[in-house]
Amino acid sequence: MTATNNTRCLAISGGVGGAKLALGLSHVLPPGDLTIVANTGDDFSHLGFTICPDLDTVMYTLADMNNKDLGWGQAEESWNFLDALKRLGEDSWFQIGDRDLATHVIRSRELGLGKTLSQVTTQLSRDLNVEHPLVPMTDDSVSTIVCTRNGEELAFQHYFVRDRCAPVVSAFKFTGIERARPSPEFLAALGSARLELIVICPSNPFVSVDPVLKVPGVIEAIRTSNVPVIAVSPIVGGQAIKGPAAKMMRELGMPQTAAAVARHYVEQYPDIIRGFIIDDADRELRGQIEALGLSTTVTNTVMVTLQDRIDLARHILDRT
Amino acid sequence: MTATNNTRCLAISGGVGGAKLALGLSHVLPPGDLTIVANTGDDFSHLGFTICPDLDTVMYTLADMNNKDLGWGQAEESWNFLDALKRLGEDSWFQIGDRDLATHVIRSRELGLGKTLSQVTTQLSRDLNVEHPLVPMTDDSVSTIVCTRNGEELAFQHYFVRDRCAPVVSAFKFTGIERARPSPEFLAALGSARLELIVICPSNPFVSVDPVLKVPGVIEAIRTSNVPVIAVSPIVGGQAIKGPAAKMMRELGMPQTAAAVARHYVEQYPDIIRGFIIDDADRELRGQIEALGLSTTVTNTVMVTLQDRIDLARHILDRT
Repeated sequence: MTATNNTRCLAISGGVGGAKLALGLSHVLPPGDLTIVANTGDDFSHLGFTICPDLDTVMYTLADMNNKDLGWGQAEESWNFLDALKRLGEDSWFQIGDRDLATHVIRSRELGLGKTLSQVTTQLSRDLNVEHPLVPMTDDSVSTIVCTRNGEELAFQHYFVRDRCAPVVSAFKFTGIERARPSPEFLAALGSARLELIVICPSNPFVSVDPVLKVPGVIEAIRTSNVPVIAVSPIVGGQAIKGPAAKMMRELGMPQTAAAVARHYVEQYPDIIRGFIIDDADRELRGQIEALGLSTTVTNTVMVTLQDRIDLARHILDRT
Repeated sequence: MTATNNTRCLAISGGVGGAKLALGLSHVLPPGDLTIVANTGDDFSHLGFTICPDLDTVMYTLADMNNKDLGWGQAEESWNFLDALKRLGEDSWFQIGDRDLATHVIRSRELGLGKTLSQVTTQLSRDLNVEHPLVPMTDDSVSTIVCTRNGEELAFQHYFVRDRCAPVVSAFKFTGIERARPSPEFLAALGSARLELIVICPSNPFVSVDPVLKVPGVIEAIRTSNVPVIAVSPIVGGQAIKGPAAKMMRELGMPQTAAAVARHYVEQYPDIIRGFIIDDADRELRGQIEALGLSTTVTNTVMVTLQDRIDLARHILDRT
């Protein structure tokens, strides 16, 4: 498959926070102007299914069928499969809803027929009337491993769901990443002649954004494109809007601030990140982040309503 | 796996009607005295799952978790998986409930790990607190094919569920049966030193009972055991209590009567069937069936209540 992509904007997303901004961008940019790439380091195999939490969260969000109460999974969900599974004495720590399961079943069947994750994602997106291209970071297997201070190495979903982020983290590994290649559509978007902007959505820097940027060839392609990369801080007022990012920063010995996220990106990807967006609540950090060489703007980044998502998307697009 | 089995009674069952009598027998006989073998010719692969409708119907019935309104599947079932599947543009003709799906998922996973269907059935039965041994007729793949008058050959579930038994049948085939062997526990039950009785439950003769009896070695083992085989008519007053048996008989040019079922068994399995049980409504057929050489008794075979099931079980056990 030779991918062609003529996008103007590429958004890099993890799960919930990233999906909110991706939705905002999708309201502002037509499908031909926005490609969304999702982290697949969280993907795992469970009960024989290939489960792709971030791809699904973005896909369900763009299809307006995400569960707004839970923050993950499908709307109007039921849990009878899981209940029956428990009765069979099976592990039920990973919550699969009855509706959500259909996605895993079809994805696993199609992968089993030899399709790539990109192809299956395109197929599922089309069936759910998602118009904007959504692509996995890679079609290869990459597994985020959480290394803990007591020497354990936990598969990400074990850390995140089973253990509820309780273990103290010391580092992260992305097993298989050295052999992975960016997905064809991701690579095509990075090479789009019209590409003007790469947005790093407000997702977890360590386990959502880093896996995407560390796929071999991605940073080189970004550098070649010479396109500005703008990151939105997932940390607001010292806290993560959702998820364990702030807890991880504390455990890694980093300040729990938007500035520390900016520093992480600058150190990991020198000369790649050009802009940073922080919340009004972190206004006083602006000078500190600009001192890192990042053009920094301040706006509301806490996306409660759909309008908040659209407003943040406009802010990002207007500044470039 | 060397199976040991010291059962006194072996019941051969298809789906709903057979399961009712199996339940009755299970209330009268302790687990050590009753082994139930289920037809697996209806089994099929769907969405990547191995689905065993008759095994599941018997298992759910013995576990008292069968859906009494539907007559199949699990009680307190929901259908959101199927609904989500439709949204993905998938075939939804085969109704898989959210709870039921857990059984298919676990069975398929365990088979994928190399376990036999017998082993997986034992495991599922144990998890659902089914105390009486329930075994598949074979661990090998046998597929019931419905040949239709217009020359089509339909996989059984396509005929039965998708096409709602509408096609006119002309014959049946059991693909793979020539290479199949009885499951170890089925064979062990047939060889039990204590075996006193084999019951053919009131299931469809053509697509539920015939596949079981036609597995190579079964009839020979029954003959060697010299144990009486008693069949219960699935046809009452010219109608099938459930399913297409009567319609099939008409299309095959047979009278739609209990006597024609008896004749079918006598012709297919000479000197094997010794007794036949008909419903009070068919009392006048008794002489006709006895003329075939079958010891025939009359009782209520329409099992509406649990007590009906138990009463029929007692009638069968008392007459031998």
